[in-house]
Amino acid sequence: MYELGVVYRTIQRTEAHVADQLARFGSATVHEAQGRVGLLHSGIRPVWGGAQVSGTAVTVLLHPGDNWMMHVVAEQIRPGDIVVAAITAPCTDGYFGDLLATSFQSRGARALVIDAGVRDVKTLAEMRFPVWSKAISAKGTIKATLGSVNIPVVCADALVHPGDVIVADDDGVVCVPRALAEKTLEAATKREANEGEKRAKLAAGVLGLDMYKMREPLAAAGLRYLD
Amino acid sequence: MYELGVVYRTIQRTEAHVADQLARFGSATVHEAQGRVGLLHSGIRPVWGGAQVSGTAVTVLLHPGDNWMMHVVAEQIRPGDIVVAAITAPCTDGYFGDLLATSFQSRGARALVIDAGVRDVKTLAEMRFPVWSKAISAKGTIKATLGSVNIPVVCADALVHPGDVIVADDDGVVCVPRALAEKTLEAATKREANEGEKRAKLAAGVLGLDMYKMREPLAAAGLRYLD
Amino acid sequence: MYELGVVYRTIQRTEAHVADQLARFGSATVHEAQGRVGLLHSGIRPVWGGAQVSGTAVTVLLHPGDNWMMHVVAEQIRPGDIVVAAITAPCTDGYFGDLLATSFQSRGARALVIDAGVRDVKTLAEMRFPVWSKAISAKGTIKATLGSVNIPVVCADALVHPGDVIVADDDGVVCVPRALAEKTLEAATKREANEGEKRAKLAAGVLGLDMYKMREPLAAAGLRYLD
Amino acid sequence: MYELGVVYRTIQRTEAHVADQLARFGSATVHEAQGRVGLLHSGIRPVWGGAQVSGTAVTVLLHPGDNWMMHVVAEQIRPGDIVVAAITAPCTDGYFGDLLATSFQSRGARALVIDAGVRDVKTLAEMRFPVWSKAISAKGTIKATLGSVNIPVVCADALVHPGDVIVADDDGVVCVPRALAEKTLEAATKREANEGEKRAKLAAGVLGLDMYKMREPLAAAGLRYLD
Amino acid sequence: MYELGVVYRTIQRTEAHVADQLARFGSATVHEAQGRVGLLHSGIRPVWGGAQVSGTAVTVLLHPGDNWMMHVVAEQIRPGDIVVAAITAPCTDGYFGDLLATSFQSRGARALVIDAGVRDVKTLAEMRFPVWSKAISAKGTIKATLGSVNIPVVCADALVHPGDVIVADDDGVVCVPRALAEKTLEAATKREANEGEKRAKLAAGVLGLDMYKMREPLAAAGLRYLD
Amino acid sequence: MYELGVVYRTIQRTEAHVADQLARFGSATVHEAQGRVGLLHSGIRPVWGGAQVSGTAVTVLLHPGDNWMMHVVAEQIRPGDIVVAAITAPCTDGYFGDLLATSFQSRGARALVIDAGVRDVKTLAEMRFPVWSKAISAKGTIKATLGSVNIPVVCADALVHPGDVIVADDDGVVCVPRALAEKTLEAATKREANEGEKRAKLAAGVLGLDMYKMREPLAAAGLRYLD
Repeated sequence: MYELGVVYRTIQRTEAHVADQLARFGSATVHEAQGRVGLLHSGIRPVWGGAQVSGTAVTVLLHPGDNWMMHVVAEQIRPGDIVVAAITAPCTDGYFGDLLATSFQSRGARALVIDAGVRDVKTLAEMRFPVWSKAISAKGTIKATLGSVNIPVVCADALVHPGDVIVADDDGVVCVPRALAEKTLEAATKREANEGEKRAKLAAGVLGLDMYKMREPLAAAGLRYLD
Repeated sequence: MYELGVVYRTIQRTEAHVADQLARFGSATVHEAQGRVGLLHSGIRPVWGGAQVSGTAVTVLLHPGDNWMMHVVAEQIRPGDIVVAAITAPCTDGYFGDLLATSFQSRGARALVIDAGVRDVKTLAEMRFPVWSKAISAKGTIKATLGSVNIPVVCADALVHPGDVIVADDDGVVCVPRALAEKTLEAATKREANEGEKRAKLAAGVLGLDMYKMREPLAAAGLRYLD
Repeated sequence: MYELGVVYRTIQRTEAHVADQLARFGSATVHEAQGRVGLLHSGIRPVWGGAQVSGTAVTVLLHPGDNWMMHVVAEQIRPGDIVVAAITAPCTDGYFGDLLATSFQSRGARALVIDAGVRDVKTLAEMRFPVWSKAISAKGTIKATLGSVNIPVVCADALVHPGDVIVADDDGVVCVPRALAEKTLEAATKREANEGEKRAKLAAGVLGLDMYKMREPLAAAGLRYLD
Repeated sequence: MYELGVVYRTIQRTEAHVADQLARFGSATVHEAQGRVGLLHSGIRPVWGGAQVSGTAVTVLLHPGDNWMMHVVAEQIRPGDIVVAAITAPCTDGYFGDLLATSFQSRGARALVIDAGVRDVKTLAEMRFPVWSKAISAKGTIKATLGSVNIPVVCADALVHPGDVIVADDDGVVCVPRALAEKTLEAATKREANEGEKRAKLAAGVLGLDMYKMREPLAAAGLRYLD
Repeated sequence: MYELGVVYRTIQRTEAHVADQLARFGSATVHEAQGRVGLLHSGIRPVWGGAQVSGTAVTVLLHPGDNWMMHVVAEQIRPGDIVVAAITAPCTDGYFGDLLATSFQSRGARALVIDAGVRDVKTLAEMRFPVWSKAISAKGTIKATLGSVNIPVVCADALVHPGDVIVADDDGVVCVPRALAEKTLEAATKREANEGEKRAKLAAGVLGLDMYKMREPLAAAGLRYLD
Repeated sequence: MYELGVVYRTIQRTEAHVADQLARFGSATVHEAQGRVGLLHSGIRPVWGGAQVSGTAVTVLLHPGDNWMMHVVAEQIRPGDIVVAAITAPCTDGYFGDLLATSFQSRGARALVIDAGVRDVKTLAEMRFPVWSKAISAKGTIKATLGSVNIPVVCADALVHPGDVIVADDDGVVCVPRALAEKTLEAATKREANEGEKRAKLAAGVLGLDMYKMREPLAAAGLRYLD
């Protein structure tokens, strides 16, 4: 783990039909569905709003201020992938801009998730290439030090293995381990099943207190109503 | 104060005609008008931009990672209220999403102000339900511990009593104590009275230095002009 | 340096044709072009998105919570200037709102860059007056203490002399010293020259690895490919 | 609430024998004992380590960068008091140094808790005057604007009324409302009663799992042991 | 990965003679020796200064505000272990105090590393039980939700597997993967070998420029000396 | 300004008798004495407590994660100097440890002030070499990119020219421009002159309200006393 200077070309990606379907549930539902783990911290925000994607993780580990490996990872992208970029120490530099986005997009990447900064954000929005990052910065990077591609990485507090599924939207980014992806898809599907019905009831003025039968446990816990 | 496990059903709300009128002045003017106190700290930001509201505070105190009381407070909402949610320790979890927003909206709530995170933010924007929060997070919460409803709370550095007026817009959120609301409305009205005239003068190139007669006090304070 | 209570009326501005042309390259390219220095830290963000400007710096040093000098600097603005506001200690108060923006705009200012907060942000967006700040806050300021105008200031980690060029866009804000402006303009022009060609290649699927001839140096640095 | 420009000379202090005894339990035990509320946020740290105090709160509300009211509050101090200083907006300036500490100490103050900065910290340690603050800063303050003394204040997320009890040590600072002080003292005493016995058992190698009888609830919650 | 509700009783610990020897090199040297990866972020600080330890990691994953699993992990501690505690979302609560420290110490634990808060810090120092944490907080925790023990965890940006070596001192905390521990020990030993000689030369006034033969590469890189 | 790749060997240092005497007043008094400017932000803290120094600034500009220029600046140190290290972008890496401290000390440096991290902090304390930094980190740096020595730098929000005086103690760090040093020394001396007398009065119970004759201005500002 954390080998430096290696590129794993062969990774086991989560099956596409699973990876693809997770997008429509969004990060919040998927996070719940897999037992409330795997969330990147909430400092990772979309560079432009409204995108909702899922895809298989291709990972890259970079050094602070050095984006050399971004070009190395580009070659490993397959259609349907999302690049997950971790840095070996906190850094807000702009590792990624319109040229790399053009390259990633042409390779079939669906998005970039990076625990650092990006730039050319106006162009990224115009290109509709989704990026989640912790900063926006005009500061560029050098190309001097080797990192690695497709090793397990820690990105924004979450452990991501190559081939895991990434689900990202305006609420945040969640990583679904490959081994749990199918089960998580099922659980997410189940969670969503009766959401429409619930929403209709709540819209009609039914209280969650009644719909979820909370009054009894609240009283049992000691809740007192006073006037 | 800070009783846990209690819900006050009867609170004294600021009169509607006062609470409602404060919205149009916005948080900055209202904050000035009441003597520059009562502002929530600037980390509290609108989840979607452009809303400008005022309403009477219904308060809820929750525990970190636990949104059980959100369902309890829903029942106490009356049309024209704004829910103010404080947490007993710093937390960025997503306490509130589209289902609760549907419920709050159907009860007549005008907005939510929360010193924590929310989720489903794309849907919140589509629903036009205004939320001010300190974070956006896909991380959900559990329902395990009692807090309280309609007790005085400290929310984002500000003390809010149930029935106070909340004024919120893109500049931030301010709490107007019930006892000061009418006076603050008068003061805000007065402040705004000649704003149009001032704006016209400034647009015409008149300097604030002259319009506000600042040259003399500046000179008295020792300001020197050099070439 | 850091004289207090002085206003320098005569400053040497970078020539307009240089200052004006830098806008179209954006902050990221200009920052690279001048050797990767002069960037304001990435906490300085546009209040509303999409603006891309350049102009000559007029500087103002203010005290925390006190915007008196904003009115003093207004008089020193000439068409094409960008006001750069530094504070003597960290502060997030709202120093600047719609009235000052009206005044600045009528004097010909192109933008404000401030290492503090601003307010009336909805109106600023409607007026299309670009502002880069580190905070948005409804909290106003007093007018009690002298600062200075057109002295060198440190703004968000960058040293700005009056007359320097400021380039700002969604990626951030960079200061180009007057003495380097022409050279930086040339360097930026050169950098952009073959960007279109590069973009076309990358869009066609050519890898940066090949386009930039990185394979050899990567191998020399020890990069290993594994399956 | 949040009246500006007022000094309440007459406040109801918690009885001394209650206020004094709370010190020996420390902030953690007292916080638990009163139901886990009233804690100042953990950014408030002791300026020098090792002090453990309790006393009755005398409150002061100040403006950012302005310590004028520190001299006003000094006169209201009685032996056994702890001064609690809140600021109307975030500020890290050094509001308090060796001269004010000398004055406070001579008036009988036991400590200062301030949601801002202090200075002369080496001397404060030598004087053994305990201070909890969120910053240390050489930056001084002016004396220009009125705040208030002995009004309820929000200090570091906690609501403090004059006369409440403050308990502070290396773990942090907790406010005990006057009305709850006696009950909290009893609860804290009870909590501590069998701590020694527990400590002895744990030191002897008994596991909390057994001592607290957790094995059954853990199993009921689904905990699985694997080899 | 990130299974919840499981306790792995059997883990492969790094051999003691390797794990034990790494302590004397300290975190900085060990971090360099293993290729500059594996460092926990610098927000993790010692609760009391001066300790320098190494040991084998026993990991625990906890939920925010819930320290139930601390008692579960206690049973899995063997002499020479260091407990590494990760939380599923950011939290500064005080998860650990003198009672748990007594228990851990009696089980043979050498230290605790936790990406959250601890309390009773004065007693921890008196007990000489070393703790590295990101916060100190009097706020306690509940015992309600299952986490896991001895699964791989992400702690303060670093991936830690049970059985890895933890090296911690006043400079920070580094995790050495079990598979790299022996090699890292060798590399660290080599790095230290001629440190004494270097120190003596530098103390005698020899410049690093000469000792490391940097003058030529600096000149080659273009360094110019001006008077 | 901000030339990269240059070393200025000849700088004009503030006269030693002035630079040396400023130490005894400490950063707070010196900051006041020169009109409340020149303070480094309060995130810059002493690595070990109790040192109080002044000296002439030798400046170095480094790149994030790269301490090559530390060896270059070492050669420019003269007895009585304090090295001031600025970084071109935010970085918490450990740029400086015991070997460089040995070298700096042998050259006669009195201290290091750095807007980044340092390591080997236990040894630095043992060596009694004072360091003020914004972080402590075991993470080392590379030696790859040229910065500059003895150019004006922005360090932690303050502009520092080579030859200026640095005054640092437990309260923070202040930069006194060379041209103002003598005047500041006089002003500081004057400020201290009657401090002893004031302290004695305050210790005797005289209130600042009376000693500073504040009662009248407070009343004039509208302060009301209530019972």
